Amino acid sequence: MPERLGPPLAAPLFRRVAIVGLGLIGSSIIRAARHLGLADTLVAIDRDEGVVARVRELNLADEATTELAGVRGADFVILCVPVGACGAVAQALRPHLLAGCIVSDVGSVKGSVVAQVQPHLPEGVAFVPAHPVAGTEHSGPDAGFATLFHNRWCILTPPEGTDEAAIDRVRAFWAALGSNVEVMSAQHHDLVLAITSHVPHLIAYNIVGTAADLETVTQSEVIKFSAGGFRDFTRIAASDPTMWRDVFLHNKDAVLEMLGRLNEDIALLARAIRWGEGDKLFDLFTRTRAIRRGIISSGQETAEPDFGRRREVEPDKASETGPEPRPGA
Amino acid sequence: MPERLGPPLAAPLFRRVAIVGLGLIGSSIIRAARHLGLADTLVAIDRDEGVVARVRELNLADEATTELAGVRGADFVILCVPVGACGAVAQALRPHLLAGCIVSDVGSVKGSVVAQVQPHLPEGVAFVPAHPVAGTEHSGPDAGFATLFHNRWCILTPPEGTDEAAIDRVRAFWAALGSNVEVMSAQHHDLVLAITSHVPHLIAYNIVGTAADLETVTQSEVIKFSAGGFRDFTRIAASDPTMWRDVFLHNKDAVLEMLGRLNEDIALLARAIRWGEGDKLFDLFTRTRAIRRGIISSGQETAEPDFGRRREVEPDKASETGPEPRPGA
Repeated sequence: MPERLGPPLAAPLFRRVAIVGLGLIGSSIIRAARHLGLADTLVAIDRDEGVVARVRELNLADEATTELAGVRGADFVILCVPVGACGAVAQALRPHLLAGCIVSDVGSVKGSVVAQVQPHLPEGVAFVPAHPVAGTEHSGPDAGFATLFHNRWCILTPPEGTDEAAIDRVRAFWAALGSNVEVMSAQHHDLVLAITSHVPHLIAYNIVGTAADLETVTQSEVIKFSAGGFRDFTRIAASDPTMWRDVFLHNKDAVLEMLGRLNEDIALLARAIRWGEGDKLFDLFTRTRAIRRGIISSGQETAEPDFGRRREVEPDKASETGPEPRPGA
Repeated sequence: MPERLGPPLAAPLFRRVAIVGLGLIGSSIIRAARHLGLADTLVAIDRDEGVVARVRELNLADEATTELAGVRGADFVILCVPVGACGAVAQALRPHLLAGCIVSDVGSVKGSVVAQVQPHLPEGVAFVPAHPVAGTEHSGPDAGFATLFHNRWCILTPPEGTDEAAIDRVRAFWAALGSNVEVMSAQHHDLVLAITSHVPHLIAYNIVGTAADLETVTQSEVIKFSAGGFRDFTRIAASDPTMWRDVFLHNKDAVLEMLGRLNEDIALLARAIRWGEGDKLFDLFTRTRAIRRGIISSGQETAEPDFGRRREVEPDKASETGPEPRPGA
């Protein structure tokens, strides 16, 4: 079942949209915006010449450049750079931003981004921070695809006093990309994402690292027998290192707070194992099933067993028998 | 791409195979064994009358019964019950087992299963413990499918002195199901699986539980924004509670040892975050990508972004545009 986007809009939402940073997220936005006709002109800006060349080859934008001056004349600029780079990029953009322009971003941390970016914006430029909660473990301009944001949530965290019309236009942009849009404070965003995204990534990176370092179990054994659960962790532990380093450094307090909570609960569980308290384990394991059901029924996940992973088939065997029934059929 | 099994064998490997416990694993084995013609007669035994009725409706076996006496005459008996139930089932089976029979199991813990089962087996009955490292988060006879073990590893942990011919026959059975077979000691198995399967499940259950208990973030927010990483953990945290309670209680030492290692590494990482040591984070995050690559190149995982999860499509939008290119295309 191919994924599809809606038809192009009757009229563009913006005249000139500049995407700064053409990684997974930036290149997905520009693909979707082009398909949907959300701008008269789409500008791709990346400091990496190789990325700009690739954007030209893929024909993703109307203009592609390494120069931040490319934002000149834009009425919408989206920073799609690592969280730690937002301040420097905003500062360098300042001379090229005109009054009436809306600046946004896609960072996974919002408090720090607001603090970094807002001081650099000239009078008359609105800042509407955004975080599309979507992604894959792949990086770079080739990894993007236009339906990445479809049926995902995009969180806006406009600071107090942000122009309402600017918020509405950013909301319309993300709605056009297929996202559900929610507005909350940057502080609350950072707490919510600490538990739903940052700590899971930290734990995944950590468990993969611990497994690699064991002296009693070889790395080849870890890889061979990963289907027992471990491999689920490795997907998110393959995400972009620069992006995630910045997330942890810039959402330090919330991450450490949530990690502390997690550690308390792990200690309790370890004690239950040590003392053979099976009922406590059973109760927790039953409770967690309900949350999984909630995630599936909300459309944020597929119910296919094993995520519907397809296993390799040996061609010589595959040719001789008919298809197996689907699980549960 | 439907998954397929090979053609039926020229001659059955066993005369009478009895599967005790028709959950995800037991019902997958019986489906595959029937398809491949691995036995003259397949017997399904489950203490739950509802399960036996369902097995009859699905026509999975030649005989289906709640009585353990159904194993009578079997030359191969596979226990597919929770690890904690193996001892009691073996004891109850004893009067029905004939010399020359091979008993096996599918438990995720091996040391404890050997200790529980072996004392109950009569003279002339070989015990060849097995662990197919495969599964999904779904349970029960409807959840099984014949290709579950295809291209997965099955670990045999025969105790010292086990009849070599019996080991070879069990190896041939799993190879016929499409698995790669490896032999190791029960003790090493329990250590390997503690890190590749048991601790990942424990952490997943734990993080989902922690998230559900927060007073600052609502459960509905956790569900809505789960696409940021959290949902990957919820799949394995939806696995069968009874099975997993037993795994932790019966592999206590190895699980606590591995959990201790993990906790040390988490503490180090938390410290790096607190002190802003970005290089340490970056190094770890880069190292873990390599392990992911190993798992994909070994065929234990798909490289499709986001596991190739399919997103929901709004029908009214889907009708009007062509398919989007695949990611990376």
